Amino acid sequence: MTAFRFDLIATDGRARAGLLRTPHGDVPTPVFMPVGTQGTVKAVSPRDLKDLGATMILSNTYHLYLRPGDERIARLGGLHRFMAWDGPILTDSGGFQVFSLAPMRRVDADGVTFRSHIDGSEHRFTPEKVIAIQENLGADIITCLDECAPPTDYEYNRQALERTHAWAERCRAAHRRADQALFGIVQGGVFPDLREASARFITGLGFAGYAIGGLSVGEPKEQTYAVLELLDGLLPSDRPRYLMGVGTPEDLVEGVARGVDMFDCVLPTRMARNGGVLTRHGRLNLRNACYADDPGPLLPDCTCYTCTHFSRAYLRHLILANEILGAHLLTLHNLHLMLTIVREIRESILAGRFAAYREAFWRE
Amino acid sequence: MTAFRFDLIATDGRARAGLLRTPHGDVPTPVFMPVGTQGTVKAVSPRDLKDLGATMILSNTYHLYLRPGDERIARLGGLHRFMAWDGPILTDSGGFQVFSLAPMRRVDADGVTFRSHIDGSEHRFTPEKVIAIQENLGADIITCLDECAPPTDYEYNRQALERTHAWAERCRAAHRRADQALFGIVQGGVFPDLREASARFITGLGFAGYAIGGLSVGEPKEQTYAVLELLDGLLPSDRPRYLMGVGTPEDLVEGVARGVDMFDCVLPTRMARNGGVLTRHGRLNLRNACYADDPGPLLPDCTCYTCTHFSRAYLRHLILANEILGAHLLTLHNLHLMLTIVREIRESILAGRFAAYREAFWRE
Repeated sequence: MTAFRFDLIATDGRARAGLLRTPHGDVPTPVFMPVGTQGTVKAVSPRDLKDLGATMILSNTYHLYLRPGDERIARLGGLHRFMAWDGPILTDSGGFQVFSLAPMRRVDADGVTFRSHIDGSEHRFTPEKVIAIQENLGADIITCLDECAPPTDYEYNRQALERTHAWAERCRAAHRRADQALFGIVQGGVFPDLREASARFITGLGFAGYAIGGLSVGEPKEQTYAVLELLDGLLPSDRPRYLMGVGTPEDLVEGVARGVDMFDCVLPTRMARNGGVLTRHGRLNLRNACYADDPGPLLPDCTCYTCTHFSRAYLRHLILANEILGAHLLTLHNLHLMLTIVREIRESILAGRFAAYREAFWRE
Repeated sequence: MTAFRFDLIATDGRARAGLLRTPHGDVPTPVFMPVGTQGTVKAVSPRDLKDLGATMILSNTYHLYLRPGDERIARLGGLHRFMAWDGPILTDSGGFQVFSLAPMRRVDADGVTFRSHIDGSEHRFTPEKVIAIQENLGADIITCLDECAPPTDYEYNRQALERTHAWAERCRAAHRRADQALFGIVQGGVFPDLREASARFITGLGFAGYAIGGLSVGEPKEQTYAVLELLDGLLPSDRPRYLMGVGTPEDLVEGVARGVDMFDCVLPTRMARNGGVLTRHGRLNLRNACYADDPGPLLPDCTCYTCTHFSRAYLRHLILANEILGAHLLTLHNLHLMLTIVREIRESILAGRFAAYREAFWRE
């Protein structure tokens, strides 16, 4: 598949710096993908995303399938043209949404039947169906249908894994578009034996990249890290590894330290709309009265548009008054910080000083 | 008052092209001021406003007094710095809001007592108080407290006018800051005798500019136009005339044709958030199903960011999905159109072809 390539450029311990080549452009890794659930990264425009230095975004198969519909998007020229984002896009398979958001669902060996969270209408995803939907959307990277189980329920994970593996085979067989790379998904909760079996099975099928699903959904950090360390030894080093739905600035640093190349998370954008401000460690809640007269920026040294133009007092006012501009400006800041941190991480790997960067990050 | 000056540059029939000089920059007139009710033009940032070519904005004394408070804004360096808008600002006096938004109010000769629409708390505006509030905010142009009466109730207007005139005298006496220009407000509903009396009284006091209040609030267009034509002969030609709260593209053309220099209206921004798209004549409602698969731009020849990047189908999807980006992109388009039309109008006046422009506008 010439349209897609991954070059590992440098390693530093387990940390990796690479370059992901896609039909819509190159993506330096590690990469953080802002999430554009419904065909828009909430509260920012494509030109804002470019200005922020975003290189690749994620969009959700489940949401776009329900509204406005993948066939409509195909008729309108595909997702890139539809949302006017000409950079690379990854679509998830909808598995996570179906197993967490859809109000009712019934899983069987062949697929999963669920009700729309919008209007309660009944729908069915099979491996072949989610590939067809993702072909209609036309993202650069697409993913296999998987079943997301609660991470600490062994028996549930064991059974779900059987389905996830069978579905991965069927997705691989259904995959046709040469301009789309298909990623397999490794599941197995927090259980080393299941994760190892999943990694061996999924890599045995052979995919352009490997997603790690079902982590950072409530389990202790040590268990997350243990799974990542295990997988680092099992996943092929010449393919990108994508830790789905993660995370915080700390998660970026610790994920990269365990061999992860790609991240996505709604946290920076969702927090922003609620008045939450990301810092390198933890967050500020602008609704707190202590910011009412604060003339300073969100973060003292931040170079984003928001921090270089607006005070905490003003941004707090916007959030309390439910002004759209508040969501916009906080989203800009939160994404800027995440994208800055992955850039810093990459530079430190290329310079062979990732360990020092990580140590300094935690000392701050 | 050297900080403020108005130069009439050209006239074409009753249409006027001028230059308003303020401490925060020059404003070519005719001008349309986007409305920033709560210290933000809803859904757009100051850099967006600059990109759109906005030269001056309006903000609301009533809203900012209630939240976050004019004294807080003063402590934070004034409204310009607070909202990071370094161009000229005009603040209304709060009269319109108190007489239309506040759930309860009690007017007397000295002022008006009302309850906050936010928390029901009781407050009182007097002429001196609204000047003090506007001094705290620090806008370039401030306005007198006035009473807005239903435009077709003669007796109500006659009595309200007595208060408005007495308050204008007191505002003028209370006005102190040399870097703020105070505008008088002419009221009187649709009644020529009241409007003439008001124009004579208010111009007799002498203000840096004259606002025309209480029009386009439901009365027939012919009555609006008759009042404007009457006032064109009564207001001094060397001072700017500001038609408050107006209006549509048509209103801009017809207002300028009757000697108006300044306009403001929430229509373009409010419509946008509801999926309403301004055209030169009338509007599109993007919620209409006929746009679901429409690949075209909002307006075929529009050069705004929205029209040059996004389809009606996509924008409709954003509006139906309640995405903030939909409000943002439609606001950009609607403001772009209003600002484009006033620029076109000004150019036509400078070129001595306003009558032809107006005729072509209506033929379209």
